[in-house]
Amino acid sequence: MSSHFGRKIKISIFGQSHSPAIGVSIDGLPAGIKIDMDELRAFLRRRAPGQNDISTARAESDEPEILSGLSGGVTCGAPLAVVMRNNDARSSDYRETRDIPRPSHADYTAHVKFNGFNDVSGGGHFSGRLTAPLCAAGGICLQILRGIGIHTGAHIVQIGGAKDAAFDPVNVSAADFEKIKNNALPALNPEAGEAIRLEIIKAKEKGDSVGGIIECAVTGLPAGLGDPMFDGVENRIAAVVFGIPGVKGIEFGGGFAGVARNGSEFNDSFFVDGGKIKTRTNNSGGILGGITNGMPVIFRAAFKPTPSIGMEQESVSLPRMENAALQVKGRHDPCIVPRAVPCVEAAAAIALYDAYLDR
Amino acid sequence: MSSHFGRKIKISIFGQSHSPAIGVSIDGLPAGIKIDMDELRAFLRRRAPGQNDISTARAESDEPEILSGLSGGVTCGAPLAVVMRNNDARSSDYRETRDIPRPSHADYTAHVKFNGFNDVSGGGHFSGRLTAPLCAAGGICLQILRGIGIHTGAHIVQIGGAKDAAFDPVNVSAADFEKIKNNALPALNPEAGEAIRLEIIKAKEKGDSVGGIIECAVTGLPAGLGDPMFDGVENRIAAVVFGIPGVKGIEFGGGFAGVARNGSEFNDSFFVDGGKIKTRTNNSGGILGGITNGMPVIFRAAFKPTPSIGMEQESVSLPRMENAALQVKGRHDPCIVPRAVPCVEAAAAIALYDAYLDR
Amino acid sequence: MSSHFGRKIKISIFGQSHSPAIGVSIDGLPAGIKIDMDELRAFLRRRAPGQNDISTARAESDEPEILSGLSGGVTCGAPLAVVMRNNDARSSDYRETRDIPRPSHADYTAHVKFNGFNDVSGGGHFSGRLTAPLCAAGGICLQILRGIGIHTGAHIVQIGGAKDAAFDPVNVSAADFEKIKNNALPALNPEAGEAIRLEIIKAKEKGDSVGGIIECAVTGLPAGLGDPMFDGVENRIAAVVFGIPGVKGIEFGGGFAGVARNGSEFNDSFFVDGGKIKTRTNNSGGILGGITNGMPVIFRAAFKPTPSIGMEQESVSLPRMENAALQVKGRHDPCIVPRAVPCVEAAAAIALYDAYLDR
Amino acid sequence: MSSHFGRKIKISIFGQSHSPAIGVSIDGLPAGIKIDMDELRAFLRRRAPGQNDISTARAESDEPEILSGLSGGVTCGAPLAVVMRNNDARSSDYRETRDIPRPSHADYTAHVKFNGFNDVSGGGHFSGRLTAPLCAAGGICLQILRGIGIHTGAHIVQIGGAKDAAFDPVNVSAADFEKIKNNALPALNPEAGEAIRLEIIKAKEKGDSVGGIIECAVTGLPAGLGDPMFDGVENRIAAVVFGIPGVKGIEFGGGFAGVARNGSEFNDSFFVDGGKIKTRTNNSGGILGGITNGMPVIFRAAFKPTPSIGMEQESVSLPRMENAALQVKGRHDPCIVPRAVPCVEAAAAIALYDAYLDR
Repeated sequence: MSSHFGRKIKISIFGQSHSPAIGVSIDGLPAGIKIDMDELRAFLRRRAPGQNDISTARAESDEPEILSGLSGGVTCGAPLAVVMRNNDARSSDYRETRDIPRPSHADYTAHVKFNGFNDVSGGGHFSGRLTAPLCAAGGICLQILRGIGIHTGAHIVQIGGAKDAAFDPVNVSAADFEKIKNNALPALNPEAGEAIRLEIIKAKEKGDSVGGIIECAVTGLPAGLGDPMFDGVENRIAAVVFGIPGVKGIEFGGGFAGVARNGSEFNDSFFVDGGKIKTRTNNSGGILGGITNGMPVIFRAAFKPTPSIGMEQESVSLPRMENAALQVKGRHDPCIVPRAVPCVEAAAAIALYDAYLDR
Repeated sequence: MSSHFGRKIKISIFGQSHSPAIGVSIDGLPAGIKIDMDELRAFLRRRAPGQNDISTARAESDEPEILSGLSGGVTCGAPLAVVMRNNDARSSDYRETRDIPRPSHADYTAHVKFNGFNDVSGGGHFSGRLTAPLCAAGGICLQILRGIGIHTGAHIVQIGGAKDAAFDPVNVSAADFEKIKNNALPALNPEAGEAIRLEIIKAKEKGDSVGGIIECAVTGLPAGLGDPMFDGVENRIAAVVFGIPGVKGIEFGGGFAGVARNGSEFNDSFFVDGGKIKTRTNNSGGILGGITNGMPVIFRAAFKPTPSIGMEQESVSLPRMENAALQVKGRHDPCIVPRAVPCVEAAAAIALYDAYLDR
Repeated sequence: MSSHFGRKIKISIFGQSHSPAIGVSIDGLPAGIKIDMDELRAFLRRRAPGQNDISTARAESDEPEILSGLSGGVTCGAPLAVVMRNNDARSSDYRETRDIPRPSHADYTAHVKFNGFNDVSGGGHFSGRLTAPLCAAGGICLQILRGIGIHTGAHIVQIGGAKDAAFDPVNVSAADFEKIKNNALPALNPEAGEAIRLEIIKAKEKGDSVGGIIECAVTGLPAGLGDPMFDGVENRIAAVVFGIPGVKGIEFGGGFAGVARNGSEFNDSFFVDGGKIKTRTNNSGGILGGITNGMPVIFRAAFKPTPSIGMEQESVSLPRMENAALQVKGRHDPCIVPRAVPCVEAAAAIALYDAYLDR
Repeated sequence: MSSHFGRKIKISIFGQSHSPAIGVSIDGLPAGIKIDMDELRAFLRRRAPGQNDISTARAESDEPEILSGLSGGVTCGAPLAVVMRNNDARSSDYRETRDIPRPSHADYTAHVKFNGFNDVSGGGHFSGRLTAPLCAAGGICLQILRGIGIHTGAHIVQIGGAKDAAFDPVNVSAADFEKIKNNALPALNPEAGEAIRLEIIKAKEKGDSVGGIIECAVTGLPAGLGDPMFDGVENRIAAVVFGIPGVKGIEFGGGFAGVARNGSEFNDSFFVDGGKIKTRTNNSGGILGGITNGMPVIFRAAFKPTPSIGMEQESVSLPRMENAALQVKGRHDPCIVPRAVPCVEAAAAIALYDAYLDR
């Protein structure tokens, strides 16, 4: 088992960067929900490459074909399977990585795990391309959640040294999410977006790459989702988010910075507001004991710099077991973080919709 | 499902802070492994309370009784069940929290999830007391891993504003882990330990609490453990670590700080050393594409300040649905981080031994 | 993984025939349900040995101790753990089976699977003794189901050549179940019960054993429980029933005999009765496409003759790898079927309550 | 969750009778195994319809397209996804069944479970068409098992009143399986095959249907596969076999008939033969305590008569909630058993290969 997730819905992702197709089966969706394909396509376009001067020009259509699970455009209780064809199969670009693994990429560990039979073209099953079916599944969950008043949004809070403001953890709303979508880069503040763009351009011009942090918020969640211990909402979200290539950390609410504070400052006081229990601050990120408390769920995911860079690097020749220099050819994103923003939203939506159905 | 974890071994934890007993069943341990009960007891003592001036005086025996799974002291293939009796059942101390939930504690969310039927005494199933069976399971996994040359260790890297040095991510070894155990507080450097102790004392004297960060390293792991996407080693470790009360973040290798760097600096160059492939740096924390690369696995977990503090706090009365002040009585740890160090080791050992058996 | 079952509730059974205790953790029970311990004890007594002239005299107390999961006698959302002490640890009776496995018993396969480290005393984890925690879990599910109008009952339909009448598959009701409990042996007709008793006595007097068939019915189930394909109600019930030692077959509704008939006779016609859809016959055993149709669920389980018999048998010496005669010492049930009746009810209740919660 | 199975390999089936395509993702196949597509196609043809005078003429191509999981025709560690297009989408034939469910078919229970949003065309996800991806997954497992000396075969032992001989449970071999494949109908004895054919023709001529029993054997299995209790080999095989539409019973070895015998006859004596432990008889069906004993695994599955018949039947109108007559139009198999033979082999292969990998 590996590319599976879920308790009530069961996500099963398949495909390689250059296999005939990639896709996902989503088992367990309730019947009777209309899926808006235009909205799904629009969501998928947010992670598609080749849109501007800071991402690769790989021409993927990303056109989702629904193979099953719908009847008259409405979920029918059968597993919903979506596939996307791989059009741009330039596998020759990647031949060298079979012998000389890219530093900090899965080339080497895939080689070990699969005894050298792994599909090296474009990273095979470990490719960022596999986030397209993740986004297909997540895009469907996002639609359904929105229909019940639960909204998900994300933005870049940091790329290299450039930073955006954080969400207001108490008052963040769907309006913020809309604002982000209208910006050239997914940042809250357009000026931060521009600083971020310049960081990426700077890395690109050096043939280098740079990492970043994405912040995600989910509003409108009822209190009581999640389970104790290993099935808490943090555990569930982390289980999906670490499935996105390049993620090396996740923190909820006050996160790592919160440890320097005292409980008297960090604790989120409860108060009654219009017959509802709320908290004045939200350092808990909307989760107490693994269970949602009705405040927005807030988390941040750290993405390492993309390992594929144009500069020459030290590596080893696997067949010869000796040191070897590596010069990666082909075009690569200097920073995957902008395209990862919808992936993080998708991950949150999958984990939380599953927790919602499992309540 | 909630208090379950694992693919090949299956951990199932049960108990409440003041139920007759707490315990764990570990299904799937290979047969034929001798369990050293003295070593297990010694490990459990590391998380036991009442040891010094910085933790509570609750008198728990934590004496593990093995109910099943052994035959002649050796695993026999049957599930191994361990229970510990709860001796110190002073549930009256906690009566108030039924009506007025502690800010940032699971009191409120447990109340919502379980419709007011949750066991409020001492936090019930959400109590830190439940880390004792986690440590029992983890202590057994740690023993077994050590027998195959895989060593696990952890230390405090930060409490409040006091910081310890980090592990050397490339050269960390079992010798470091032994050194930590001999220190008064689990820190690499004794001076850092003293600074950390003073931070805790300072919080205690104010009737306040403070959070911290624990760093954990696992050495001797073969390359190739873990699976792609949702069953990667990061996903598996996070799934257990977020089961420890108070954890709000986890990061592997370079983590959150790494995002500010370029790929050319961050990437871990491969080289051949004595017929083995190693990396010169270890910003990946020993994991590429969710799969171990043979370098030490390194991660850090962020613990929020303990929510139970002696100072008066704002909260709500659940039966009256109105604002109410809360003054928590009884003694509480001003900082759970020192006692959480073996819990983090236990979590890592459980996740990695399961991944090892699942290889 | 092995001794685990369930989607929404998670049953985890542990123990060996002569380990200090046996038990079960039930994770996922809804909070707020009162557990009647007297009723649970009464249910457990139905599988206890030593009650009459047809079962063994092993003095087990089977007294269940609830370690966790209750607060004030009511489920609190935490896993409910029950243990029973093993009092009668005469493990010396079984020494010979370590070297010479009993034909048709798990002695040999446990030896292979666990490399000779299996606990041979009394069959270890493979002992019929482990049906006590199964009945503890099932007895709790039975109680809860009854509280929502779902009743479960079972009886012996065949032992050796003696047969009882089958349930009326359309009109079977809780009154039938009560009648069975008042009979000396769990049969619908007292005369059949007497014929069955004589079959068992006949086997006992020869130092031999005999098998049988148990029929189980569950009434009051709503239509719509279960899922397509591998999570159908048949799959779920079979998954638990085959966990009872000695079961070699299961059939639902018309079962094996139904194959000789034509669809025109076998199909269960629908009709409307008082605003409810019912079927005139119930050859489907209440399940269509894996999903309950609102009629009683009916199934039968076949139990092979108990492998432990007093007569000398051909076997092999495992250490010497040569043929060897085996004479099993100690007292054994000539027929486990009477004591297995509550086990089958327990299995049905666990599977169906889980399916009910998972609806 | 519903259409998922497996511990080490994870089968996820999707599709409806008339959705654009049906398919399966198989996650967890070891890397480095060559898949013979011609052999897979030949296996799939054995369940394809329209081959003779006893099955429907629906023109399905059943041509499998591998979307992912292979690299150069060899498994690469990524999930292997296979899809088959649905060509013959005559959904109008089935319109009536939306309102008037077929007796003993899943039409009614699917309607209840999915609130009327189920895809009624051809039975939707409950169609026998979904056994095509089951066979694709099973056909791949069969190939791999054969490569390690494990052979699987099945035949019809009964249709209506016509019976074939059973496998010799001790000496059954791959040669028997080959012999069956060369017969016009999958029976051991050609004369039995002819009697079976006549039973089916008889039902067909009446516009009726008839059920049957399939026997399956697996040879060459090592001792020690499977786990105690709920993960025994019987549990695992039953979990897949009950996923085939129409199965109402399963029995292993001596099964239901065995209960009338005494232990002294039924027990399978062990003996040493050429350094291997074998049993003289095989009433256990190769499984003791849920674990293989090295003898052939033998089981039988009972299929009810196909519910879709041409004769008028009593049913109900769901929109009007009143009794209504139903006359099913279109062509239907009078007996699905011949086409189910490869499905049963596929189910056995999936369950046992998973148990093999999980050993």
